Order: sequence, then C-alpha cells, then structure tokens
Amino acid sequence: MNFIDKLTDAARKNKSLLCVGLDPDPKLMPEKVDVFEFNKAIIDATSDLVCAYKPNIAFYEALGNEGLDALKRTVDYMSEDIPVIVDAKRGDIGNTAKAYARALFEHFGFDATTVNPYLGFDSIEPFIEYPDKGVLILCRTSNPGAVDLQSLICDVEGKSRPLFEVVALKASQWNKYGNIGLVVGATYPEELRLIRQIQPDMPILIPGIGAQGGDLDLSVRYGVDAKGEKAIINSSRQIIYASREKDFAKAARQAASTLRDQINQHLSSLRK
Amino acid sequence: MNFIDKLTDAARKNKSLLCVGLDPDPKLMPEKVDVFEFNKAIIDATSDLVCAYKPNIAFYEALGNEGLDALKRTVDYMSEDIPVIVDAKRGDIGNTAKAYARALFEHFGFDATTVNPYLGFDSIEPFIEYPDKGVLILCRTSNPGAVDLQSLICDVEGKSRPLFEVVALKASQWNKYGNIGLVVGATYPEELRLIRQIQPDMPILIPGIGAQGGDLDLSVRYGVDAKGEKAIINSSRQIIYASREKDFAKAARQAASTLRDQINQHLSSLRK
Repeated sequence: MNFIDKLTDAARKNKSLLCVGLDPDPKLMPEKVDVFEFNKAIIDATSDLVCAYKPNIAFYEALGNEGLDALKRTVDYMSEDIPVIVDAKRGDIGNTAKAYARALFEHFGFDATTVNPYLGFDSIEPFIEYPDKGVLILCRTSNPGAVDLQSLICDVEGKSRPLFEVVALKASQWNKYGNIGLVVGATYPEELRLIRQIQPDMPILIPGIGAQGGDLDLSVRYGVDAKGEKAIINSSRQIIYASREKDFAKAARQAASTLRDQINQHLSSLRK
Repeated sequence: MNFIDKLTDAARKNKSLLCVGLDPDPKLMPEKVDVFEFNKAIIDATSDLVCAYKPNIAFYEALGNEGLDALKRTVDYMSEDIPVIVDAKRGDIGNTAKAYARALFEHFGFDATTVNPYLGFDSIEPFIEYPDKGVLILCRTSNPGAVDLQSLICDVEGKSRPLFEVVALKASQWNKYGNIGLVVGATYPEELRLIRQIQPDMPILIPGIGAQGGDLDLSVRYGVDAKGEKAIINSSRQIIYASREKDFAKAARQAASTLRDQINQHLSSLRK
C-alpha cells in the first residue's frame, strides 16, 4: 500500500491526525532503558492513537551504530498499518541522492522521508521514483531562522512571492508520481493557510506543536484538507518525555490521548 | 589547529588545491577489497598530492553499519596534517542540528562539514559553535536542478539578486567565529566568479570537475583567493576509480598527480 493511503487509513482507523516523534535523547529518557526498548514501549502504548510515527534520524546517528541498530529494529517492530516517516531532511545530487533513497527506503524500510528542496528537482527525483513511498518537502520550517531564506521575496514569472510559496508551487510540477507532500511548521499558521490553499490535496507534516510553541487550533484549522484529513500533526518531547519515571509509557499514552482529543475537538468545531 | 589553517598548510606543503572525494561504491570498486582497505590504499597513494579528503557520508550510510564503521576507521587512519571534510549537507533545527554536529565533529572527528542553508542561521549555528571546525555552506550546487531555487531572483533591501548571491552575502553576517566557507559547483563558473568577489577570503569547496563536466581552468581562475589559495577543487570518481584492477591505488595516484599538475599549471598561468 502506498504511503498516502496507509496514512489515511491509519488516521481514519485511529481517528487521529497525531504523529508521535520518536527522538530518543538519553539525557531525557528514563534511566536503564535502551533506545529500542524505549521506542517499543512508546509504540505499544500509543499505536491506537496515532496516524504515523516520525523518528528524526539525527538522534540515532548521534548514538553511533548502536543508535542506528535501534532505529532499524524500531522500524522492523512497527505494525504494517502505521506509516513511519523518517525525518532526515536529505538533499543531495544524482548518485548521492540515490544512495540516500536506497538507505532510507530499502535498508531501513521507512514509508516516507522529509527532503530539503535547496538543490532542486534532480535532488528529489531519486526519492519520488519509489512511488509507494512518501516524499515530504521542507517548505516552511518551524524554527526562527526559517525567515532567513524562506521568506525572501522572489520574482517568478512577473509575480512576487516568498520563497516558501515558490517551493509549494514547484511541488505540483515535481509531483510526477503523486507521492509528494510538504512540511510546514505549526509556528507559522498564516503561512500554513497560504500553503494549504496552494496545495489543497497534499499531505502536510506539521511539526512545532508543544515545545516549540506552535498553535494547535490554527494548525488544525489551516492544515487539514477539505475533508478534515491529510494534516500530520507531530509532537515529540511533549509525549515521549511526559514522564521520566518507570511510568513513562503510560504517561506518553495519556499525553498522546489528550493531544489527539484536542485535535479532534478543533476538527469538530471546524465542521460546525 | 583550526580547519582553515590546516587546509592552508596542507595545500602549501603538498602544492595542491586538489581534494579527493572518498565515495566508495561497491559496483565500481575492485572486487574483494573492503571499503576501509580501499580508502586506506587511496590515502596511502595520494596523501602527498592533496589539500583535503572529502568522504560523502551517503555512500557509507548506504552500506549500513559496516559502511559507517569503515568511515570512522578511515578518519582515524588519516594523518593529522590533512583535513577531512565530510559531505553531509545537513540542515536541521535546534536540538537536531546539535545532534548532527556532535555526531560529525565529536563521534567521527571530521575537520569540516557541508551544510544546507534552507533552514537559516539557527540551523548552522550549532556547527559553527565548534570554532576549530569548518562549516561549508551550500551556495551554488553543481547539479542541473541548482537553478530551480538557487537562481530565483530575490528582492533584498531594494536590490534584486539570485538566491545563491543572497546566501553568499548572508555567510558574512553568519560568520561569527570565522570558520564558514562556501560550496560552489565547477559547472557554474560565472556564478563562482561572482561568489568569489562577494567573499574574497572564504574557503570555497568546488565539486563538479571530471564526471560532472565542470571546467577546470575557470574553476581555478575564479575559485582561488588573491593569493591563489582557498579553493578546494574536488574530484571523486575520476581519481578513485581510475582503475578497477589490482593497480587501482597506483592509478589513483597517477590521476591525482595529473590533476594536481593541471591545477598548478592553470594557477601559474594566472600569475603571469
């Protein structure tokens, strides 16, 4: 099953637009729990509450081979029904992009990845050529520095638009296999609104809720498509580090359940 | 010793602006030679001919843990006198950028890395905060898709400039610790000329010679600083795959020696 269908099915089955970020940080994790065990406990506790999981590969790379082993075991452990999006933000050319795509989609078996658009179409092509995999292009990121480049006003065919809008428009041109989506930070709701108008149907991954201070109500309102779907609202620390004690998995379930319900409340207020 | 000094010393000692890309591809490597042995043989055969080495981490990731082990062993094996630039093109935010910087600079021990500017200053800051390490920002990449975003005309303070020029200008603002450089593809010599004017002193990594068809004469002419230094001219496949037989290291030495001499001829014709 392709990424977008798998995402939609999981979201419907679990009545959830919540994506849980699996970003293991030994300084925040309960003591004496290894990374795979930690992830497994979080997954067991939350898999009926989410539409996707999103490990950021940097946290695993920082732990060396042991970390990457734990990541591979995490993907292997995951139920087939829940898509796993790797947050890798890769962007490289030709041969190298192919090597990254092979590593992420074939070696690890992720369902989707985030990619960086700065190098242009040929850096993204080797990823989209896996038509069952999702490719989420960074459009407007959640960090303060996003404005440095992404807000620059560009002239494109006589029209002035910020760079992030150009990226959102190019995503259509580039979407030869129908498997492209976008990444838009919850910290920029007005930009999210504009981008959803430009791409009414694409999945949009929305990080930046919680620790980064993104607005949940506006993220739901502006992030979903006309059917109230295809927004992937990510939270990492708020959920996986809800407790640092033995009850961490239970606390994560509680936090995930609360957040899913809040999202659904915002969704149902939209429908009124 | 910091990256820029190490680079300059190696370039002077070996009379070379040549950087050899260590991108192991089992399909192109001699049979029955493992990745570390391959790199070691190439290094032994060329270390008096280069100013730096540049492994692209994607090729190692594609080989799984074994590949990353070979990469770590390669860096450990390298002489202290020759800087190792990892081509990682990372770009991520806050915590995650910190995790990447830690992995590349502390775990692996690279002297410098390439980074992607799309996420802005705060994505680059955790790297430059290692003041002895070099941080080479992608400015104008060597691939055809570079034009998709990097050539967009942006309005900055009433002036119209292509995005890659804005990145070259921002590099000054961002260069708080004096350890920033740029990456400019050999396939765009006119852009290289403009960028060298904007940044007369920064090191510029210039990939795209050889297999990608970049012009060597113009890369030298426009890439070097006023002293004929600080251009890092990279070649990968042309050197490391000069032969696929048992004599691969000898052939790599021959190819590196030829290319170094060609670079030096172009340099001396500039001085006339």
